[in-house]
Amino acid sequence: MVTAAVGVSAQSVEIFGTVDAGFARLSGNGVSKTGVSTGGANISRLGFRGTEDMGGGLKAGFWLEAGMDVDSGQGKTAGVGGLSFNRRSTVSVMGGFGEIRLGRDDTPTFLSTLIFDPFLTNGVGGTMAFAMQGIPGAPGAPIQYSNTVGYHTPQNLGGFYGQLQYGFGEAASNAAYNKAGNYAGLRAGYRTGALNLAIAAAKMNGATAAADNDIANFGASYDFGVVKPMFLYASEKVNSVKISAMQFGFTAPMGAGQLRASYGKYDTSTNNADWSKLAIGYGYNLSKRTQVYGAIARISNKDGAQKSIAPQGMTATGTSLGGSASGVDIGIRHFF
Amino acid sequence: MVTAAVGVSAQSVEIFGTVDAGFARLSGNGVSKTGVSTGGANISRLGFRGTEDMGGGLKAGFWLEAGMDVDSGQGKTAGVGGLSFNRRSTVSVMGGFGEIRLGRDDTPTFLSTLIFDPFLTNGVGGTMAFAMQGIPGAPGAPIQYSNTVGYHTPQNLGGFYGQLQYGFGEAASNAAYNKAGNYAGLRAGYRTGALNLAIAAAKMNGATAAADNDIANFGASYDFGVVKPMFLYASEKVNSVKISAMQFGFTAPMGAGQLRASYGKYDTSTNNADWSKLAIGYGYNLSKRTQVYGAIARISNKDGAQKSIAPQGMTATGTSLGGSASGVDIGIRHFF
Amino acid sequence: MVTAAVGVSAQSVEIFGTVDAGFARLSGNGVSKTGVSTGGANISRLGFRGTEDMGGGLKAGFWLEAGMDVDSGQGKTAGVGGLSFNRRSTVSVMGGFGEIRLGRDDTPTFLSTLIFDPFLTNGVGGTMAFAMQGIPGAPGAPIQYSNTVGYHTPQNLGGFYGQLQYGFGEAASNAAYNKAGNYAGLRAGYRTGALNLAIAAAKMNGATAAADNDIANFGASYDFGVVKPMFLYASEKVNSVKISAMQFGFTAPMGAGQLRASYGKYDTSTNNADWSKLAIGYGYNLSKRTQVYGAIARISNKDGAQKSIAPQGMTATGTSLGGSASGVDIGIRHFF
Repeated sequence: MVTAAVGVSAQSVEIFGTVDAGFARLSGNGVSKTGVSTGGANISRLGFRGTEDMGGGLKAGFWLEAGMDVDSGQGKTAGVGGLSFNRRSTVSVMGGFGEIRLGRDDTPTFLSTLIFDPFLTNGVGGTMAFAMQGIPGAPGAPIQYSNTVGYHTPQNLGGFYGQLQYGFGEAASNAAYNKAGNYAGLRAGYRTGALNLAIAAAKMNGATAAADNDIANFGASYDFGVVKPMFLYASEKVNSVKISAMQFGFTAPMGAGQLRASYGKYDTSTNNADWSKLAIGYGYNLSKRTQVYGAIARISNKDGAQKSIAPQGMTATGTSLGGSASGVDIGIRHFF
Repeated sequence: MVTAAVGVSAQSVEIFGTVDAGFARLSGNGVSKTGVSTGGANISRLGFRGTEDMGGGLKAGFWLEAGMDVDSGQGKTAGVGGLSFNRRSTVSVMGGFGEIRLGRDDTPTFLSTLIFDPFLTNGVGGTMAFAMQGIPGAPGAPIQYSNTVGYHTPQNLGGFYGQLQYGFGEAASNAAYNKAGNYAGLRAGYRTGALNLAIAAAKMNGATAAADNDIANFGASYDFGVVKPMFLYASEKVNSVKISAMQFGFTAPMGAGQLRASYGKYDTSTNNADWSKLAIGYGYNLSKRTQVYGAIARISNKDGAQKSIAPQGMTATGTSLGGSASGVDIGIRHFF
Repeated sequence: MVTAAVGVSAQSVEIFGTVDAGFARLSGNGVSKTGVSTGGANISRLGFRGTEDMGGGLKAGFWLEAGMDVDSGQGKTAGVGGLSFNRRSTVSVMGGFGEIRLGRDDTPTFLSTLIFDPFLTNGVGGTMAFAMQGIPGAPGAPIQYSNTVGYHTPQNLGGFYGQLQYGFGEAASNAAYNKAGNYAGLRAGYRTGALNLAIAAAKMNGATAAADNDIANFGASYDFGVVKPMFLYASEKVNSVKISAMQFGFTAPMGAGQLRASYGKYDTSTNNADWSKLAIGYGYNLSKRTQVYGAIARISNKDGAQKSIAPQGMTATGTSLGGSASGVDIGIRHFF
């Protein structure tokens, strides 16, 4: 608010983003949809960030990042279409000890599902091994979380890396359930040369104790050069109800681009409600910053499940109990 | 989401915009209003855009543009006041063949009404020859459209130019009317030296087949140097109901600025509901980027019409059936 | 909208902002809350601004500034969480005569409460001497106002400075109360060497004449070097109901930072509803742009009052009639 205090050094602001739009065709239960989707290869965003070297090995940083649907121009926010920095909004202090962040940030449990999915969780082919939402009353594992304090390890630990995050639910101490909305998570990994391994786990408190969600996942990848296979296991558990995912995938350089494929099995402890998903895709790099991509995916449901495909920017067709669903997309992704 | 993938070259981002605010006074049916309006000369906006040369004559580009009301600071979005890139949100591939765009963009039918209006559709003087909204159940011809794929011709066709656009309504194939929300439009023009001519036409599918809207317009201008007369004809048709506009206007350099005037007649096939609008204005350029402008306009309604004037940032006064309405504004417009 | 008219000189755009997040613990009536707050030292914002030298001593300028909650990434807007330039959205013409602004801007009555508060109105320690909201039916004195025209004096008046502002309510002339929403305010001050004095006053018209609000304040500070004491008196009056604040505070350089403290008494003409607030804090500068801060504050209510503490990004705990409330925060503030 003090005039002298703002714009001290505007030159340090970096603007960044991703703009991604594509065609998609969805089908399920004999119903189909064709249209333009967004975020098929990478989530579209606009961000502002910067770091400041404060001397003595200390730096300060900020990051403000807003997601949006390129196909409609709508920003992403809770419930309404405004541009809010829903994807990341942090202030940091960094040093030899690592980085401490305050604000809204990616959760440790989400980051592992992202890293070990050939489709980076995006488009018709993206994994369903997060926010599985198969558990009655549970919102699914969160992607980002508000009101967090986080710690990220420095990068010089001989390949080991880790993240701790605590999110405050900010319930009043006299609330019926005063842990409501809290999130406590961690991620620990080892990455050296071709190998990358990580585990993550979190407890997310629901609106009541009966809705507390235990989230866990494990991922591994090995880059052979000609192909990089990936494995991902993830689970969510609310009381006696559990849902888990096991996904095998790979990426492989091919020509000026990358081939991607995955097969995931999703098991739930209730009602014969399992499903599986098969996806294959290719991204052709027109340049370092611009890619043309396409993917095709199919979900097969058991009698108690009716999962279908909904990339960002389109609503799902839905399908019948035990029916199948499929999707195909093709698009352009451009970084700036 | 992949850290290495963002901000590859932040230097390529261009920030642009327009900030426009003014005073306005509106009157109708003996009622008047005075206040501060926005977008009187040019729509206010903030945008981020850039292009990348990928070699071999190919470029990639993006454009994120958000409209806003300078008089209240509110961003423009569907229903609520957030900053969303409601004005343009596209990713493009460009080459010798022209440009292909995906996302939310101006419609071909709107662009012709803009180009051949001396007031660029803005302020109290702007034409009403688009989104005429005189047809029961019809929303009026759209300005921008979401979920589109578009093609723009290259600029070296000897003066010919054109645009094709298809917007997906994304209705499910089993919807009661599965064409709902589709838009298919084109624009073709010829511009050389002083002459500019263009036709545009589109079919916009409504929520039901009975609300399908046929949109068409034709515009022409000739720049004699001392004066540039403009002509614009536009029509919208839903079933047997048709509304059409015929507008004569001109711009003329005068001192360090520009004089503008227009007279439009609006005819509808129902209920003696015709009206006409007369407008005159002047914009004085303080610099290449800053202009002080003013305009005055008056609407005369026949017995079945009650149109009034509502510049951005103010609500209309309304008027009685067969009454008249008028508006005046004066403001500052600044590009950055 | 005219393509040639945008982005004339993108280089002139300055991006600026403040990112501030902290921990806070609130308590009242035996109830406590712990969490992450935002804007504890300075309000978080993102802005775009620039000026243009048009020659002959004339400049043009614009300013678009959006507030946000860093702890949740949500932008601030009326009712919903989108990024809108709710904090400032102006277009200006400046010259030897001073500056004329149009759009949404800070009110003169708010600026004095900001300048003479050691906590700049922020965090758990910020003054309550604006928007006191103790008057039934009154919204409290406004911070920013939409639809304004303002005049700011030039800086070379021998220490005198001033601001005039008129905000249009834009009510129709036939409205039941056609002054509704108007604001007329002024601020006049004298600042030279160590001394700073200012008075401000405004009339804000309510939805009815019975809700018209008379706002006034007076502030003074003197910088002795080792300590800078500050005094602030503020009042709001709706009909026969009046609420007034008298606050004593100081800032003092201490080590690489600043000590801050204030004591405010709040008197209301109704119901034995007075309260007082005591606050002390410290800000340690890691660099010119990054500060670690902390503050602690306590409110004591008389039997007819139940005020509590609510920094940005957290809801208050509330307290009982005649109860007390307290708050503590610690955080990082970073300018860019």
